[in-house]
Amino acid sequence: MIDKPSPTLRVDCLARRHDVTARSSRVIPEETPIAFTYGGSTHAVMMATPADLEDFAVGFALTEGLVDRLDDAGEVEVVASELGLELRTWLGGDRQEAYAARKRSMAGPTGCGLCGVESLEAATRALPTLDNALTVSAEGLIEAMDRMPAEQTINQETRAVHAAAFWNPASGALIVREDVGRHNALDKLAGALARQGLAASQGVVLMTSRVSVELVQKAARIGAPIIAAVSAPTALAVRNAEKCGMTLVAVMRGRDFEVFTHPGRILEQVSAHVA
Amino acid sequence: MIDKPSPTLRVDCLARRHDVTARSSRVIPEETPIAFTYGGSTHAVMMATPADLEDFAVGFALTEGLVDRLDDAGEVEVVASELGLELRTWLGGDRQEAYAARKRSMAGPTGCGLCGVESLEAATRALPTLDNALTVSAEGLIEAMDRMPAEQTINQETRAVHAAAFWNPASGALIVREDVGRHNALDKLAGALARQGLAASQGVVLMTSRVSVELVQKAARIGAPIIAAVSAPTALAVRNAEKCGMTLVAVMRGRDFEVFTHPGRILEQVSAHVA
Repeated sequence: MIDKPSPTLRVDCLARRHDVTARSSRVIPEETPIAFTYGGSTHAVMMATPADLEDFAVGFALTEGLVDRLDDAGEVEVVASELGLELRTWLGGDRQEAYAARKRSMAGPTGCGLCGVESLEAATRALPTLDNALTVSAEGLIEAMDRMPAEQTINQETRAVHAAAFWNPASGALIVREDVGRHNALDKLAGALARQGLAASQGVVLMTSRVSVELVQKAARIGAPIIAAVSAPTALAVRNAEKCGMTLVAVMRGRDFEVFTHPGRILEQVSAHVA
Repeated sequence: MIDKPSPTLRVDCLARRHDVTARSSRVIPEETPIAFTYGGSTHAVMMATPADLEDFAVGFALTEGLVDRLDDAGEVEVVASELGLELRTWLGGDRQEAYAARKRSMAGPTGCGLCGVESLEAATRALPTLDNALTVSAEGLIEAMDRMPAEQTINQETRAVHAAAFWNPASGALIVREDVGRHNALDKLAGALARQGLAASQGVVLMTSRVSVELVQKAARIGAPIIAAVSAPTALAVRNAEKCGMTLVAVMRGRDFEVFTHPGRILEQVSAHVA
C-alpha cells in the first residue's frame, strides 16, 4: 500500500547568500504524474500538485467537456502507485456509453493519423455564449483578489504554486484551489464548485497567473462570465473572451487593473468610461 | 494565402489607475495553436508563441525523443491557416520508417485503451545519465543570468513571456529563445542549438521560470549537465535531476541562488561548502 504524496516537501540545498554558501533547506511543491481514467480507460496524464484530487477528477471532466453535469461523473477512486496517482472515475448508468461515443468522436488533436489541419480543427473547440448579466464593483473585485493570499496555504509554504479562486459577490464566499499548473488549479476549482453545488455563473474566477486561451476556454465551459487575473492575457485569450461574451480583467496590481473585453460587467469601469 | 501571425499584438483596453478609468492599450503576446506533423501525421498540437518556428519543430522532435540527431529531422515547412500554424517536418531517408515504428511503440500516455497504470508507465521516461565533468563559476552563472533580460525582446514588449537560454562558459555565447510556455521556450532553444551545431553538453540551460520535471527531462535529453532558473523547482524535478546527474540551480535572485543537486559543477559552492 503506497501513501498519497504530500503536496509539499522540505529538501536540502546549498544556499548562496551575500556571496557565502551554506547548507540550507527549502519547502518546494510536489509534482505528481496523475492519470485520469474514466470508465477504466485513460483520458490524460497531467503533472500536478497532489491535493484536492476528487475536485480535480470531476473538474477536469467538466472543463474538458467529457461530461455535462456533475451527475454524469460518478465516484472518484484515488489509487497511489510508485509511478504516480490514478484518479478512477466511474461514470453513472448510461453515461459510460455516451462518454465512449463522445471520446470516439473527439479523437483529439493527435489522434490516429490526423493531418495537421484536421488536428488544428480538433484542437479548436466551440465555446458556449455567456450572456449572463452579472455585474460586480471594481472595489469588490480588488478586495476579493486581496483575500486570495491568505487562502493559498500551499503557496504560503512554497511561493511556487498558482491558485484559482471563485468569488461570489452576493454571498462574499471565496473558494481557492492551488496547483503547480494554473490550468490544473482551475480544473480543481471547477470540480469544487460542482461538488458543492455552486453555480460558476454567479461569480468571478480569479487567477494568480497570466491568462492563456486554455483558461478562458475552461472558465467558459463552466459558465463563468468574468475572469480576473494578476498577470497579462494572451491575444488569443482576449479574442476567445471577446467572442464568447466573457469579461476579461487582467494585470491586477494593487488597486489598478485593465479590462480587455466586455467591460459592462465591471460597474465603475463603465460609469467612469462613459462620463 | 494567410500570413504568419506576429509574436506580439497591441490591443485596446480600459485601464484603471489610481481609481480613474481611461481608454488605454497594451502589447500582449500572441498565442497560436501549432500542429507538429512529422512525415504527414500529427504528433501534437501546442499553444505557443509564433516565433522561431523551425527551431521549435526541430527542438520538439529532439526533446521528445522522436529523433536522436538533427540529421534525422529534415526540412521544416511552416504552413499558416485560419486555425493556426502547421510545422511540417519531413524526415530524411529511412528515418521516416524508424519514426513510424517508434511512434507505434511509444503510443503515449493516452493511447488507445490504456489503463491508468499503463498510462503512468508510458509517461515515465528513462533519462540519459549526465556524467559530464563541466564546471562553472558562481560568478559566471550570475553574470549569464544578468545578461538574459537584454536579449528577451518579446518580453521587453509584453512582460508576459518566458525565456530559455544557453550559456557557453568557454566562449561566453548566450542564445535566448522566448515563448508564452516555458517548455516551448526550451524546445526552441534545443532546436536552435542543434541547428547551429552547438553541443548542449558544453554549457548551462538558463530558465526565467520555475523548474518542472518536464524541463529537467527535456534538458537531460539534449545532454545539458546544468540547469539554472529564476524560480523554485518541484520535488519531482529535483528527484529527476538527482537521478540523471544534472546540477539543478534555482531561486536565482540578484547574487543569491540555491543548488539542489550535484553541486560539484558550481565551483565556489563546493569550496565554500567544504571549507
